[in-house]
Order: sequence, then C-alpha cells, then structure tokens
Amino acid sequence: MKKNINIAIIGLGQIGIYLYNELNTKKKTIELKTGKKINIIAISAKNINKKRPFKINKNIFYNNPLQIIKKKNIDILFELIGFSDGISKKVVEAALKNKIHVITANKALIAKHGDYLSDLAEKNKVNLEFEATVAGGIPILRSIKEGLSTNKITKVYGILNGTCNYILSEMENSKDIFANVLKKAQKLGYAEPLNPRLDLNGSDAFSKIRILSSLCFNSKISKTKCLIEGIDNIDIKDIEIAAQLNMRIKLLGISEIINGQLFERVHTCLVSKDTYIGNVNGVMNAVILHGKPIGNSYFQGEGAGPGPTSSSLLSDMLSILRGNIKNPFVITGKNRKFLKSYNFNNYVNSLYLRFEVKDKPGVLSVITNRLAEYNISVKRLIQTPNKNKNIASIVIITHKSNESNFKNCFSAFKNNKNILKPITIIRLYNE
Amino acid sequence: MKKNINIAIIGLGQIGIYLYNELNTKKKTIELKTGKKINIIAISAKNINKKRPFKINKNIFYNNPLQIIKKKNIDILFELIGFSDGISKKVVEAALKNKIHVITANKALIAKHGDYLSDLAEKNKVNLEFEATVAGGIPILRSIKEGLSTNKITKVYGILNGTCNYILSEMENSKDIFANVLKKAQKLGYAEPLNPRLDLNGSDAFSKIRILSSLCFNSKISKTKCLIEGIDNIDIKDIEIAAQLNMRIKLLGISEIINGQLFERVHTCLVSKDTYIGNVNGVMNAVILHGKPIGNSYFQGEGAGPGPTSSSLLSDMLSILRGNIKNPFVITGKNRKFLKSYNFNNYVNSLYLRFEVKDKPGVLSVITNRLAEYNISVKRLIQTPNKNKNIASIVIITHKSNESNFKNCFSAFKNNKNILKPITIIRLYNE
Repeated sequence: MKKNINIAIIGLGQIGIYLYNELNTKKKTIELKTGKKINIIAISAKNINKKRPFKINKNIFYNNPLQIIKKKNIDILFELIGFSDGISKKVVEAALKNKIHVITANKALIAKHGDYLSDLAEKNKVNLEFEATVAGGIPILRSIKEGLSTNKITKVYGILNGTCNYILSEMENSKDIFANVLKKAQKLGYAEPLNPRLDLNGSDAFSKIRILSSLCFNSKISKTKCLIEGIDNIDIKDIEIAAQLNMRIKLLGISEIINGQLFERVHTCLVSKDTYIGNVNGVMNAVILHGKPIGNSYFQGEGAGPGPTSSSLLSDMLSILRGNIKNPFVITGKNRKFLKSYNFNNYVNSLYLRFEVKDKPGVLSVITNRLAEYNISVKRLIQTPNKNKNIASIVIITHKSNESNFKNCFSAFKNNKNILKPITIIRLYNE
Repeated sequence: MKKNINIAIIGLGQIGIYLYNELNTKKKTIELKTGKKINIIAISAKNINKKRPFKINKNIFYNNPLQIIKKKNIDILFELIGFSDGISKKVVEAALKNKIHVITANKALIAKHGDYLSDLAEKNKVNLEFEATVAGGIPILRSIKEGLSTNKITKVYGILNGTCNYILSEMENSKDIFANVLKKAQKLGYAEPLNPRLDLNGSDAFSKIRILSSLCFNSKISKTKCLIEGIDNIDIKDIEIAAQLNMRIKLLGISEIINGQLFERVHTCLVSKDTYIGNVNGVMNAVILHGKPIGNSYFQGEGAGPGPTSSSLLSDMLSILRGNIKNPFVITGKNRKFLKSYNFNNYVNSLYLRFEVKDKPGVLSVITNRLAEYNISVKRLIQTPNKNKNIASIVIITHKSNESNFKNCFSAFKNNKNILKPITIIRLYNE
C-alpha cells in the first residue's frame, strides 16, 4: 500500500462529523502507528449548510457521493449514512467495485446485504470493515475475527441496544413511566428524536445479532426472523415487580447453535440482579461469548455515541492501513454456509406474564384454569392493586414450557373481554 | 508469505502440550481462515519421556531447542518455557536473529526484555507476539493494539492473577484459612505446586501491568518497582471483616498516568461488592481501560490454564499468518520513550489496617495516639475477639492520607512489643 492515503467520508451526521474531526486531529498518531499519511479529500452529506459542532472544509464537499467515487482517487471510504438500502448501498457497492476499501457503521446494511457486499469486496480484493455496527466502542468483531479466532463459539448474547438499556435502567432508577423516560432519552441523545421505533422494537439489536452469529458460527447471515420483540410494552409495574423479585428486565440479543440449528432471538428477559448481565446498566452494552477452549468471555463498554463509534471506525481504518487484504467475514463467502433455523416454537422457558383485567369475580380463575389445561404450572402469582378500581394487574410467573404450548394457551385470551390488553410477556433468563 | 508454514514448539508443559494438540486438530480451520497450511516440524522439552495427556511425535523431538533453529527451516516458533532469562531468552533471541517469528506466553521475559527483543524483531522484520502473557484468554493486548488503537488511554487496571483471585474468593466462600485454600488451589491446578510465590507476592501481576502500561501509554517498559504487594498476609479475618462491610478483597494491578508520570502498582484492595471489579470472582481475570473517546471498557474472562492460553497463542499465530510484519509494541522502539515514575509516597488513599496485639490495657491508645500524631483520622474501628485470649485483632479503617505519612506513622509500631506481627495493610479502592 502506498504511503499517502486518500479518505472520503459519506454522511456528516453526529458520527461522521466526529470522525472527521478525529481523523484531522490524530494524523500524527496514525502515521506513528501505521507509517501512513492520511488525507480527507472528499466529504458528502445531504446538506452542506447544516449546523455542525466542527467546521468542515467546504472545498471538498460533494452533493452526490457517487461523484466522489467517479472523480476522485479514493483509497478508503467511510459510509455513515445508515439505512439498509438506497444511496448507502449504492455508494458501498460502487466503492467496492472501484477497488476502494469501505468502512461502515451501517448495521442495517450489513445485516441485510453483508454477504453480497462481502463477496464484492473479496472479488475486488479490498476490505469491507464494520466493527462499528455492533456494540459501539467494544472491539467485539475484531475479537471474534482475530483475538478468539480458533475458538469454537457455541453461543453469543448480550445487551446490544444502549437506548433500550438506558430506558429500562432509568425507569428503575427514577420510577418514572416509559413515555417520560423515552422523552428524557431523546433529550440526552440516547434515542432517535424522530423515530426511535427501530431501537425500541428490537430490530436494531436483531441486526447486530445477525452480524455476530455470522462471525461466531462462520456462516452466512441468516434471513429468517426467529423471535424479535422490543421493550415498547414494558410498564413501570413490570420494573417494580422485577425489583421485588431481585431481578431486572433487560432486552437481550441471543444467538446459539442448538443441534446444529441457528437460534437467533431478541426479547426482554428477567435476569437476576446477582448475574453479570443484570448489572450492565444505563447506556452500556455487553457481549458474552461461550467458546472452546476460551470458556466464557465478557466484553462491556459504551455501545453508541459518536466517540465510541469513531473509535471502532478508526480501528478498522488502522487495520486496513497496517495489513493485507482481509476477508470481511474471515472465511470466504463460498466457504460459509446458511445454517438451518431452529424452530423457536420448541424454545422452553419460564415466563413472566402480566394480565390487565377487569377486577371482577371469576377472571382469575379463567386464567388459571386455562393455564392448567395446557399443563402450565404457576410458580408465583402477584396481584397488584390498581388506581382505577375496576382494573387489576395479575402477574404470573410460570414453570417451564415451550413457546408453542404457551402460544396455544394464550390464543383464547384474545377474545376474553375481561382481559383488557395483550399480555405482557417477559422470558426468564438464567445466565 | 509462503503457503506451507513450519512450526516449532519449545516447552511441552501443560500449555505446550495443549497447544500441540490444538495445532494438530485445528489445521483445517486455520487453513480456511488464513489460506496457510501449518506443520509442526520440531518440538523440544526438558524430558522426552515425561507423562503427557497427548501423545507427541518423538521423531521431531530435540533436546536442545537451539539446534532446531540451526538445523530446521522454521517459520514460527512458540516459546513456552517461562522464566525471564536463561534458555528461554536465548531461544527467542536466536529465533528473531534468524528471522523466525516468535510467539511467547512468557510474561517474565517480555516484562524484563521486551524492549530489547522487540527491537530485535523490528530489525529482523519478523513478528514477536505475546498476547498470552496477560490475562490468559482475554484478547486484551490485541484490543489495545488494534481494536482501541487511536484512543488515548489514561488508566488500565484489573485482576491479573487468577491464582490470587481464586484464593481470595474461595476463602470467602469456604471460610477456610489461607494455607488450606492454597493447598486446594494447588490440587486444582490453579496454583504452582512447588513454588507459588511469584503468583502470591504480586510479581506475576506486576509483569503483566508493565506490559499493559507499555502498550496503553506507547512507552518503553518501565524498570522501576513502584509498589508490589501480594496476598500472602491476608487472613480469613480480613475476608470476614470485608464481608461485614459489604466489601471484598481483590489483588489489583493498576497503572495510570498522573501529571505525565507513570504510576504502576500491584496491591490488595478493598472494593465494594456493588462494583464491577468486586464481582469478578474465582479464577476469572478482568481488565478495565479508561480511554478517550471510548470511555470505560471492560474485559473479563478466564485468566490462565492451557485452554485460554492456547486460544491467545493461536490468535497470535493467525495474526502472523494473515498479515504483514507488525511492530511488537505497534510503535517502533525508537519512538517509544521511558516515562518518568510517579513517586508513590505521594499516593493518597484510605487504608484498612489490622493490628495483632497483646490484649492488655493501653495498647489501643498507643495506636490511636500515634495515628492522631500523624493527622490520620480513624473512620471505623473494629476490635474482634480472638480464640487465644491474650491476643486481640484491631482493625482500623482510616480517612485519606498519603503513603509517606502512613509509612512514617507506622515505623514506630515495629519496635512496639505489644504489636505482635507486621500490620496487614489493604488499600481502599473506589472504581
């Protein structure tokens, strides 16, 4: 690789602009560590005049990022637009086809088109790096790809969405309701101001789990949606009851191999306060790997924000500057296979169930009878009084059964007029 | 790099033999991930006939490892003998001079001769890799060198010795005395059977701290011994009192930059059970980094044993197989400087002190008067009854003062005949 390296940054939002500044201020360190001189020769964003915390050089600004690839001699391109399709995909495609190394923070893009883009990178003998797509500043992908490279990993799980973890922690700390805490998270920049849905409904964490699975299990990125649930139905009541039980609610992303089949899921979990994962609070992310011979490996750090994300983007850049061409998923595309999906109806666990019901005789017995009918035994039952005297909350913690049995059992409740809302389901999780 | 890679393993103890087996069983994965075929063509150990859990190929056995370097065409050599000097140093030196890549698990060697050996590697354009020297299977060195490469790290600390952490945890769990728990640790293979001194007295952790400092702060490996203490003076009483205070005793290695000066230390710490580090128990190791812009980064995993250590050794090998020549400490020797040492007499903290005294009038007042004389104020005082009625244990937790003041204050106690043993000192540590 030549000594002088030309950089382009596409997307100058929070992360792009932070990275732009880091690249400019850390030129010397980068040269000391890699022997390369970097130079940002092109930038692109929707709006040149948007107010930004650092000044940009408008002489190198392009409205159309595809023009940069055509007109300039770029060595490394940062794609920081986001979204799985549209212009971000076009830019990455065009860059790879033009033998430009690509670094991206775009998890939706990699989770959806990672296999295709990675084939493109391999074919054109350039790098496609995406450390920043999972768990912000935690160097988890590099650790799987390199530090733990020869381990046989059988399970990976963790707290992969800082927004959700902040909201759940803050509900517990402030005893405030979901809607208020969400507003606070938006104010602090921990949640998207306009559309926080992808964070809250589990989709964001699921993209990350897909990327992790593929790297941990040396497989193609899965296409099936196993079980994706978010935190949007969590009520302050749930947080309080969990606390009474010495537990916390966490949104976990979990991926494991069961009888050779891939089981990927994102859902809320009740975890003990005495566990590792139960103590990862606020905006922190954590990833836990079970591997052989490594045993259990735990990584924790800030999961989002321009600082940690830039740290990952820069580590990708230094990796490119230092080394040979690397396959994006270590093993070539043709040597990675799709794994068969596990049928999550067979997933066996204990559930926390919250029913919002009319407070009148016979309602409880309808619920307990139905559970009994399906052989679902009750471990605990907590009925909490409600301000509105006509309504009661019934919380039940069940013994273990499988998802399909639970589903069949619950189907009848939908038509029960005394059950006022969809049941809130939280799965118990033992580390 | 050519396609067929010749490997030598020097040292066939627990780790060497495990690695030997891993290399043989994982050839395919390694080829899939790197495109290289590896072949172990030479091994060496003190005793060819020692009983080993895996069979070795005696046709490739050499009594003298230096002969291997002379006679065979080796590409990568694993040094797994241990000790900072003697044959292990000679082998590594000879290998590097003969342009052979070296991978070692020998922390004593790297902590003492790392700068010299690293210059040798740079000069001969080969790799010298030592991920396995710190925190067993946790890919911490690679994370500092690569994953967090452009962060400005200001502090690194953690639990770096699994033997000590196991003993402290097990004393708490079993309520058994130090000597018995040490025996148990030796039986389980967690402590050296013959001479566990280097683990227990803090030297082992200090070697690791030196290596971590050098990588975190881009400096030469320090030569000065700041503050090295072990766990050999910890009594079951200390464990019990700590528990009463909702605390635990941990042996921490800590390195930070204070006013541009390097402060490296290893000593026992009292930490709250509510902290991260207070919950890293058993043989687990943990490393915490404070960096910018990363924030706090936490790594936890098994710290020792042949499995985790082999995982690190193999990751080093894959790094060599995949990439260009890398400087052992990222930045070249000539660009790393020695940092001035912080004068640890200025270190300010609260202490836990345990005095074993004759149980007679006036003894307590001698202690408290002396503390008062040095302006050391007492935060808590716990006098515990002793089985032997003529002896009492006095535990004092002080407010903050500096090391030099403490030292001056304690000097007089040495000649006090009523104080029967050297004071047990544990420093309070707030995360």
